[in-house]
Amino acid sequence: MKQKLSIIKIGGNVLENEIELNEFLGNFSRLEESKILVHGGGKLATKLASELGIESKMTNGRRITDAESLKVITMVYGGLTNKNIVAKLQALGNNAIGLSGADGNTIQAHKRPVNEIDFGFVGDIDGINSELIDIMVQAKLTPVFCAISHDGEGQLLNTNADTIASELAIGMSHLYDTTLYYCFEKKGVLQDVENDDSVIKHIDTIGFNDLMGQKIITDGMLPKMQNCFHALQKDVGKVCIGDISMLKPDSNLYTTVTL
Amino acid sequence: MKQKLSIIKIGGNVLENEIELNEFLGNFSRLEESKILVHGGGKLATKLASELGIESKMTNGRRITDAESLKVITMVYGGLTNKNIVAKLQALGNNAIGLSGADGNTIQAHKRPVNEIDFGFVGDIDGINSELIDIMVQAKLTPVFCAISHDGEGQLLNTNADTIASELAIGMSHLYDTTLYYCFEKKGVLQDVENDDSVIKHIDTIGFNDLMGQKIITDGMLPKMQNCFHALQKDVGKVCIGDISMLKPDSNLYTTVTL
Repeated sequence: MKQKLSIIKIGGNVLENEIELNEFLGNFSRLEESKILVHGGGKLATKLASELGIESKMTNGRRITDAESLKVITMVYGGLTNKNIVAKLQALGNNAIGLSGADGNTIQAHKRPVNEIDFGFVGDIDGINSELIDIMVQAKLTPVFCAISHDGEGQLLNTNADTIASELAIGMSHLYDTTLYYCFEKKGVLQDVENDDSVIKHIDTIGFNDLMGQKIITDGMLPKMQNCFHALQKDVGKVCIGDISMLKPDSNLYTTVTL
Repeated sequence: MKQKLSIIKIGGNVLENEIELNEFLGNFSRLEESKILVHGGGKLATKLASELGIESKMTNGRRITDAESLKVITMVYGGLTNKNIVAKLQALGNNAIGLSGADGNTIQAHKRPVNEIDFGFVGDIDGINSELIDIMVQAKLTPVFCAISHDGEGQLLNTNADTIASELAIGMSHLYDTTLYYCFEKKGVLQDVENDDSVIKHIDTIGFNDLMGQKIITDGMLPKMQNCFHALQKDVGKVCIGDISMLKPDSNLYTTVTL
């Protein structure tokens, strides 16, 4: 039987609230199985960029990562956020190790080709160095990934943290029994967007199609759900969506996604 | 016979000049033995701090690391500088992994006690996690350390890069045949400070006392040399001081320090 490995992604709003972050890290550190943390840090980067007078560029409502923005992202995601999370996890008795995808060549990517939009220094993932991540996990380390990959030719690339989490889970699934957790501000996928407690506890492929048909899953949740099903189709055992309390042993109010 | 391990520290002025940095990294990546890189990044941090309107505080001519300065250092050393060096080394075929002392609990320290001066968030090193660093080296990784340690209670600490390099060399010497390289702007310890080519090729304990007596080694070079002898007394095999060309196979113009 394969060893368990949980891959947990936390969103920017958890990072911005120190009390929530500490609570999350407490829950995370108490997980008994091997685990990997993935974080972004969007709003903190936007704040620093504005303090430095760097404009956040958007095209058709989508963020562009120019050279100056990439510097800010590297400072905030790779430096400030990542190293502070690692130090906090160390204090909680977890031997955390902070990584970008360049470190140990753990996340290989290429710069997104320019089609209608030039997204700048944004990476699309090609592969995961599962062999090295396995060495770390077996050495009882807890990898903490920031949302940065690299192209192997010296270029760092801003990369979607949800995708990093799902690709890590997919890439580790031949070695481990993986569970992918998306931890965000809601308690799960909601039946009624106005009611925070109307969590749909289980969604499978058929249910997902129904929920799309009923327009209950739309907009921002749609790509997240598609990411979940992509991971499940690529041998990830289970995907869970919920808020920071999802990792507590007695928690049962979150959404579990299976095929 | 122990395996060779070189620990190389580069100074801030190498980091600030992209051409020099690339040349250094080329020489570094061609070293055949296992190796560890240590970098600071002082002036880049000062520049960012000034852009953010954060005052660089000094007391009796010595820098104080307050909470805001520590944030800047964590962003620049741990993020921007560290991750870009790692990405460049990856492009040169070296499987580099960027680390602060919090990552993998690799450098354990305590906040310097307040005596006459309160240096703020500055760390004095207690120990090195040689077991984990050994696992990395055996996995053919090249650790790249920034000048940050931690106290194990969640606090990151600004730590002198020369000291990190010597403590790493000392800590690894029971496992490896270590050489410590201090790479800075001069070709070595100079007989005549006005003549850049007047490199003293070898200094031992007796020679060091003579050079101090003759006031040839003074000021900034004195603590560096004391660091060297401290490392040698703690079983580091050899210490070399020179500029970026020191790592070339045909280089012979640098200072070697032995007991």
